[in-house]
Amino acid sequence: MERDVLEDLAAASRILVDQGVFDAAGHVSMRHPHDAGRFLMSRSLAPALVTAGDIMEFTLDSQPVDAHGPKPFIERYLHGGIYARRPDVMAIAHGHSAAVIPFGLVATPMRATYHNAAFLAAGVPVFDIRERFGATDIVISSAERGAALADALGDKAVVLLRAHGFVAVAPDLPSAVFRAIFTEVSARVQLQAEALGGPIAALDHEEGRKADAINLATVGRSWELWKRRVS
Amino acid sequence: MERDVLEDLAAASRILVDQGVFDAAGHVSMRHPHDAGRFLMSRSLAPALVTAGDIMEFTLDSQPVDAHGPKPFIERYLHGGIYARRPDVMAIAHGHSAAVIPFGLVATPMRATYHNAAFLAAGVPVFDIRERFGATDIVISSAERGAALADALGDKAVVLLRAHGFVAVAPDLPSAVFRAIFTEVSARVQLQAEALGGPIAALDHEEGRKADAINLATVGRSWELWKRRVS
Amino acid sequence: MERDVLEDLAAASRILVDQGVFDAAGHVSMRHPHDAGRFLMSRSLAPALVTAGDIMEFTLDSQPVDAHGPKPFIERYLHGGIYARRPDVMAIAHGHSAAVIPFGLVATPMRATYHNAAFLAAGVPVFDIRERFGATDIVISSAERGAALADALGDKAVVLLRAHGFVAVAPDLPSAVFRAIFTEVSARVQLQAEALGGPIAALDHEEGRKADAINLATVGRSWELWKRRVS
Amino acid sequence: MERDVLEDLAAASRILVDQGVFDAAGHVSMRHPHDAGRFLMSRSLAPALVTAGDIMEFTLDSQPVDAHGPKPFIERYLHGGIYARRPDVMAIAHGHSAAVIPFGLVATPMRATYHNAAFLAAGVPVFDIRERFGATDIVISSAERGAALADALGDKAVVLLRAHGFVAVAPDLPSAVFRAIFTEVSARVQLQAEALGGPIAALDHEEGRKADAINLATVGRSWELWKRRVS
Repeated sequence: MERDVLEDLAAASRILVDQGVFDAAGHVSMRHPHDAGRFLMSRSLAPALVTAGDIMEFTLDSQPVDAHGPKPFIERYLHGGIYARRPDVMAIAHGHSAAVIPFGLVATPMRATYHNAAFLAAGVPVFDIRERFGATDIVISSAERGAALADALGDKAVVLLRAHGFVAVAPDLPSAVFRAIFTEVSARVQLQAEALGGPIAALDHEEGRKADAINLATVGRSWELWKRRVS
Repeated sequence: MERDVLEDLAAASRILVDQGVFDAAGHVSMRHPHDAGRFLMSRSLAPALVTAGDIMEFTLDSQPVDAHGPKPFIERYLHGGIYARRPDVMAIAHGHSAAVIPFGLVATPMRATYHNAAFLAAGVPVFDIRERFGATDIVISSAERGAALADALGDKAVVLLRAHGFVAVAPDLPSAVFRAIFTEVSARVQLQAEALGGPIAALDHEEGRKADAINLATVGRSWELWKRRVS
Repeated sequence: MERDVLEDLAAASRILVDQGVFDAAGHVSMRHPHDAGRFLMSRSLAPALVTAGDIMEFTLDSQPVDAHGPKPFIERYLHGGIYARRPDVMAIAHGHSAAVIPFGLVATPMRATYHNAAFLAAGVPVFDIRERFGATDIVISSAERGAALADALGDKAVVLLRAHGFVAVAPDLPSAVFRAIFTEVSARVQLQAEALGGPIAALDHEEGRKADAINLATVGRSWELWKRRVS
Repeated sequence: MERDVLEDLAAASRILVDQGVFDAAGHVSMRHPHDAGRFLMSRSLAPALVTAGDIMEFTLDSQPVDAHGPKPFIERYLHGGIYARRPDVMAIAHGHSAAVIPFGLVATPMRATYHNAAFLAAGVPVFDIRERFGATDIVISSAERGAALADALGDKAVVLLRAHGFVAVAPDLPSAVFRAIFTEVSARVQLQAEALGGPIAALDHEEGRKADAINLATVGRSWELWKRRVS
């Protein structure tokens, strides 16, 4: 594997800590650049500490390619389930940021409050693990749970996990990081807008589609800054 | 006493500052590892400054074992009262974080808003010192007040002190730190969810019990990160 | 161009990051000090990274004077449109701070919650790009959009862009930075005051006019501090 | 003047920046330790930059003792007015923290949400400069305005200035810093408690009186930490 790919994936993990999206937990993965049937993800480790040497390789059923490797994250099934169902997804971030969780607990849907959150305008489904699995420990710890979560995500960019967190997916790694960050920021904006009351003039579907295209094309400017901060 | 025990307890104090749970006040203690009838706690000192050399030893009636030692915290009775009543408790953290205090002032009970706060799903009682002691200075400054607080805690993991703060207890030191941190984070999440309005799909008792077991088993990953940040 | 002019403009960009108004995006410009028909603005770059060497020169129709220069910001039209319409404006800041965006999404108008936000007392219009351009990518990416935004600004100090951000203008660079900062702070104050409920005793027009004059006269004290922090 | 007195007063200014109470503005003063008819206060300077050499001496009518000294703060009249009216006051802090300003704008009175804010339990008056001076620039820039503000403060520890900020007074410098900090923290707590809704079980007058006595007696522990952080 090219060293810079591993370093970018490790940097993505540290970026999401630096930007306040991850705390002592959270993980980010990317599809293997040369093998669409595999993905790359850190071993089980606090995201602030991840470096290139911690990256492991998994098959799409979330099994480590190296059976003698380090301990993987339990929730790798969340990533495998989505890569298996969504061939367009090349990178995934999963975290528990405090501003996002409320929208998985109440009936208010997340909106795209501004252009940076354009990817939310298509809708943000909520996955309630109880509906299919009853009372659980909430963790996406099996292929079945990963597949059910992927079903809930559908063709969207973000899915909320009730009483747990969120997952953001994207066509490349910088965009997955961008979407994780602005899922969190937009949640904060919406919490404040909802508190003011009355209808919220969020982006509509068409505005969201157009603004998202610009964001995907210009994400490099932000990515370079974010990476520099954690280097 | 083993040096690493003292250093872990001192680190716990600094961690809770670093994580925004303690300010210039707050204290954390642990039961003596070789004598269930004693506990360990810093001398009276801002928690950011505590090092291994500041740790004192107390009997369960909150008296210093060394009568010629430094000045102890007045609120050591809070710790002693709980260790006396709850043999399962091995560590205790007490602080005044701004997001938690509101839930001790109003009728809204704290909920377990996500898996990291699973320990709240069993319920979070509120201790109002007025009910038993009338108008006081609020401080848990006597064995009677400590015992009354321990009664209010009952078999729970967290108790709120009206117009004062919170206490989190756990079966080991890293878990007490974890619970103090996620009491604060979950309070922030709930404040936001309540502001959105409508019912909150928090963890129920069974989900809380299951998720808490996972948290207790995996707390080491967070603890290592938190400790590294204050070393 | 005098070196200190370029360095002040670059510092303004970094100040607005340091003060929490800009994130990985946002830009600040100033009218050319010797040619009222031109303005100065960074090349397309994260604002935290801008230095004097990144400053470009533009005509008021937002075209780079040096056709072979680096890549400019797409949104330079926002700046050109305002400089063309408002000869009194000497500096402009545009950002997307989370506390301000809500006021572009709902019906509640921004108020001048305290003396530092006095420039808001004259009123804060909202520019909704849909009204003139239909469903867009939200970006102020043409002279037409820039002119429409300038129309919406009118003779005010701040205009909100629906689902996008804000623009603050001023008679000099430090005052534009000051107004960008206190637009954000006042938005936070107002969000909290609105949550308490009831009428808000904000500055009236006359108080705003008087307090703004003091602010413009004393901005140097804050500017020196802000600049020192990013030097 | 003893050097450590000047250094403590300068440190108080930097502490209030470090603790998030002051931004680029705000000032703190103390009564002259050897002459009750004078007070000490920094020259006009951003509070983060104040050192011992910046401290000036004033008479109680807010005139500099050294007519050839540096430029004083305009708002020195706020300090002089209070020292003249309140012989028990030995130190004063004035700032514009974002969480406090809302309570000067709406009808909701500030409460003592927890023991650290006990000094608020006696009541927090609001000074509206319009009532006596009509439409002004809001600044306490004359002896008349200073005296009117002192009247509004009465015998309390804190007064809010409508659309401006707050003033905290105390019997010594560390306690004035303590009260400024916990005015801000308690405001944040109350904003959150009010958002939850229903009655707030704040400290009553008697609890506040008792808890305040403890705080005044133990402020040294916090003061040492705060001072160390800005040394």
